[in-house]
Amino acid sequence: MTTLKPLSDLEIARNANMKPITEIAEKAQIPLDAIEQYGRYKAKIDTNQINLDPTGKIVLVTATSPTPAGEGKSTVTVGLADALKRLEQKVIVALREPSLGPVMGIKGGATGGGYAQVLPMDDINLHFTGDLHAITTANNALAALIDNHIHQGNELNIDPRRIIWKRVMDLNDRALRNVLVGLGGPTQGVPREDGFDITVASEIMAIFCLATSIEDLKLRLANVLIGYTYAKEPVFVRDLGVEGALTLLLKDAFKPNLVQTIEGTPAIIHGGPFANIAHGCNSIAATQTARKLAEIVVTEAGFGADLGAEKFMDIKSRQGGFGPDAVVIVATIRALKMHGGVAKNNLVEENVPALTVGIGNLEKHIETVRQFGVEPIVALNRFITDTEEEIQTVLHWAQKHQIRIARTNVWEEGGAGGIELANHVLEVLAQPQNFAPLYNLTDSIEQKINTIVQKVYGGKGVQFTDRARKQLEQIEKFGWDGLPICMAKTQYSLSDQPNLLGRPEGFTINVREIIPKLGAGFLVCLTGEIMTMPGLPKQPAALRMDVAEDGSAIGLF
Amino acid sequence: MTTLKPLSDLEIARNANMKPITEIAEKAQIPLDAIEQYGRYKAKIDTNQINLDPTGKIVLVTATSPTPAGEGKSTVTVGLADALKRLEQKVIVALREPSLGPVMGIKGGATGGGYAQVLPMDDINLHFTGDLHAITTANNALAALIDNHIHQGNELNIDPRRIIWKRVMDLNDRALRNVLVGLGGPTQGVPREDGFDITVASEIMAIFCLATSIEDLKLRLANVLIGYTYAKEPVFVRDLGVEGALTLLLKDAFKPNLVQTIEGTPAIIHGGPFANIAHGCNSIAATQTARKLAEIVVTEAGFGADLGAEKFMDIKSRQGGFGPDAVVIVATIRALKMHGGVAKNNLVEENVPALTVGIGNLEKHIETVRQFGVEPIVALNRFITDTEEEIQTVLHWAQKHQIRIARTNVWEEGGAGGIELANHVLEVLAQPQNFAPLYNLTDSIEQKINTIVQKVYGGKGVQFTDRARKQLEQIEKFGWDGLPICMAKTQYSLSDQPNLLGRPEGFTINVREIIPKLGAGFLVCLTGEIMTMPGLPKQPAALRMDVAEDGSAIGLF
Repeated sequence: MTTLKPLSDLEIARNANMKPITEIAEKAQIPLDAIEQYGRYKAKIDTNQINLDPTGKIVLVTATSPTPAGEGKSTVTVGLADALKRLEQKVIVALREPSLGPVMGIKGGATGGGYAQVLPMDDINLHFTGDLHAITTANNALAALIDNHIHQGNELNIDPRRIIWKRVMDLNDRALRNVLVGLGGPTQGVPREDGFDITVASEIMAIFCLATSIEDLKLRLANVLIGYTYAKEPVFVRDLGVEGALTLLLKDAFKPNLVQTIEGTPAIIHGGPFANIAHGCNSIAATQTARKLAEIVVTEAGFGADLGAEKFMDIKSRQGGFGPDAVVIVATIRALKMHGGVAKNNLVEENVPALTVGIGNLEKHIETVRQFGVEPIVALNRFITDTEEEIQTVLHWAQKHQIRIARTNVWEEGGAGGIELANHVLEVLAQPQNFAPLYNLTDSIEQKINTIVQKVYGGKGVQFTDRARKQLEQIEKFGWDGLPICMAKTQYSLSDQPNLLGRPEGFTINVREIIPKLGAGFLVCLTGEIMTMPGLPKQPAALRMDVAEDGSAIGLF
Repeated sequence: MTTLKPLSDLEIARNANMKPITEIAEKAQIPLDAIEQYGRYKAKIDTNQINLDPTGKIVLVTATSPTPAGEGKSTVTVGLADALKRLEQKVIVALREPSLGPVMGIKGGATGGGYAQVLPMDDINLHFTGDLHAITTANNALAALIDNHIHQGNELNIDPRRIIWKRVMDLNDRALRNVLVGLGGPTQGVPREDGFDITVASEIMAIFCLATSIEDLKLRLANVLIGYTYAKEPVFVRDLGVEGALTLLLKDAFKPNLVQTIEGTPAIIHGGPFANIAHGCNSIAATQTARKLAEIVVTEAGFGADLGAEKFMDIKSRQGGFGPDAVVIVATIRALKMHGGVAKNNLVEENVPALTVGIGNLEKHIETVRQFGVEPIVALNRFITDTEEEIQTVLHWAQKHQIRIARTNVWEEGGAGGIELANHVLEVLAQPQNFAPLYNLTDSIEQKINTIVQKVYGGKGVQFTDRARKQLEQIEKFGWDGLPICMAKTQYSLSDQPNLLGRPEGFTINVREIIPKLGAGFLVCLTGEIMTMPGLPKQPAALRMDVAEDGSAIGLF
């Protein structure tokens, strides 16, 4: 510890001694022919040139229900990988790409923190290798082609009131949630109601993350449901015949990106759906590439085990034909105190009674992971205001309930701060796990949702709005009910009410809309008030951003 | 000539033997430290590391008023550079980046053609190095920040009815021309009328192309006028305080891109405003970098001499402190016949009388260039249906009027097909020119527009709608009338009526709107029916696009 002003994440990142990406690739045994450099420290990997079997074990990092500031899940993910590397393991970390929405909005960055970061953090947080832009463009090209088809005679008889394909932007832009397009008279398109989602919620992002090859990508794009005809028959991308063009727009983006952690561990960062409004995991292409190259792949899924981890295990694992071999649940004293009822401004003060109550949230996430047949390890991630009594409270609770727990301090110490956790992970990896998804695809939609609500959220059951009920019936009528469920739910609570903290019970989840994503291969259930396009706060992070005289970034963190 | 089916541009491009971009850089004497590779065949240039004076001469390539298919202006630009290289000149070609709008719409590509192309053509035509995406993002981030400011209390008192900052997309999307945003109630933003332009019409694209340094870029972004308060006072980006964030989003894109022609000539491709709805030239950063590295820079400005070339000489040259040392006007027999009244479907047939009439269009563009004090050279660009009698008609006309003319056949022959043109260019470059912009900045707005209409378009004068007249008075009131004019006008006619071909006379230009672009430093005049967001045709080029089994592009041309 020092009394000097601590360095910011961006300053630590800038002081780091990055290795040329070719050197990282070489150490990861990626043939140099498979590497396409994007500057000195980023590269795309041509996966066709890596002819190995994906045999690496998967360590999935998830968390308790988070505070708005986050619990350092990405930081622990990176730090754990660095710790495993220090223990001489052949490890790769696989992460999602940041979205400019939260970067410009609240978060200012999403690449870990302190001495557990992926680099170059400014590039990764800004445009990186352009993948999100390619996805945005493919999404909006499809929207333009749909509206143009209608304007040019509407041969397919598409009902403009029943188009479910929305436009997207990789920004937080509340004013675009509900719009009217096609105004201005007969030469300016056909007027209709529309809306913009954030790019990470696009079905194309989900497809991009779940496709196992370029051919699979194209097939999934062809199968996207865009809306219905006036006769209420479904219309697909294949009816428009533009799956080839969309695949062309995505072909380079589909190659996973290679970067490095501060400690030189290879990191594959690819795809970035949010876990509250989408399925929340990096691409299968990235995970499988990492599994081909490394013996251990450390990967994260967004937010708590109720969101990203559930979807990792019920959606991504099913599609990819793998499962987690160990699951880490990141918890902080801060978040647990908040779940015990402490107000945001009082979190810096010691409060053991509140902490004891708040542990209930962690407990539920542990139970959830165990229901999938995998043994969880709690990472108690150090925060500067933690008191020793608070820490001991959590450790004793864990000991009493026979829960694996490790203290981590990777923000400050890098991989050295994750050794205890890494040793636990290695022990769990040495044991056989009994992973299985939580529900059967042949269950009814209502059964599947009820399973998630009861077993994962700890709630009573599900309630549908009339609209959602109608959509459910339509989905069953068309035979699309054999798909897994992608719940869109607030990350702050196990319920669909953001203020219901801790471990709530007896609540009902309200499904207000069910959207069939037939290319991605899941049914999105919008619950509570969850928005698929975030807004900016009163003081967006953008206000603090700038470029220094030497051309480097200011205000990312 | 061969009787086999000719290869497509994409096939020719794919068969070409590209050199590693590091080799191209080395030959152009770019220090390797200044090169950031984007894959094997693209790179960004860190211009801070090129400490040379910009002394290269500028050859500006323009054209007659084009047919919808284009006259091969980019093709001649590339072929001329390759011809100059064959003549042992130290030459670089500087071009604009294609927009996905026309690529997905009609054109399918914009990187030259045949054996006069820049490579890798598929990458350049798709996302290239992401510059247009960065510009789109910066533009739309500003829009989101404006709407968020209003939603969060509107401290600046911005009148939502008087916002002039529009959103953009790098697509042809007619349905977004006129939209209502902010619908859905008090938590979803403030409802207002809005519209999307295509990215190439964004003021940020213009700023990006006219800025001389990162500091200048930021200063210009700060000066962007976004709208007016309820008290009708102007509001600027600097009032929102987000010029730093916008600069950060553009900092990497601002570095010029290096690629190569089929014959290995270095090509710098950077920035891409259209010349009908924007100023139509590649970036000053690209032109000046090329002038530092080469003795001759061959560059194009969009469409005819009435659009891109006029703006090159009245806007870009003024801002950059240079002027063209030679001007090439590309003409085709096809286009001249069309200007002589031949219908599109009959252009393949010989028609000397129509050709003789249509030459009037070329004649006007020649006069225009001469008025700027530069001697033009006509490039009569070969098309397969040209007859020898038609060609001789044009050559005799040129001889009679003492006009420099050269036949080019660069599509088929590459640089070898441009040697005659290159020799003319070298002769003109050896002579002193007397370049000067056409109007003084101190002229009134109406005077400046009248000068362009009368001297460049050959029309009678200008008429303003009531709305434009009001805007003009407002601009004068605020003291913004000392800026150059950026006319937005159809490319098909010298007038603002697309069907008025040939060399029309006596017409009036109708200005329906004047938009102050204070960051770019010009006033945009929207004339006739010109649209700042194009639409897609009934059969968009996207329908023919696909990805081949080997991962390569299909359907770009």
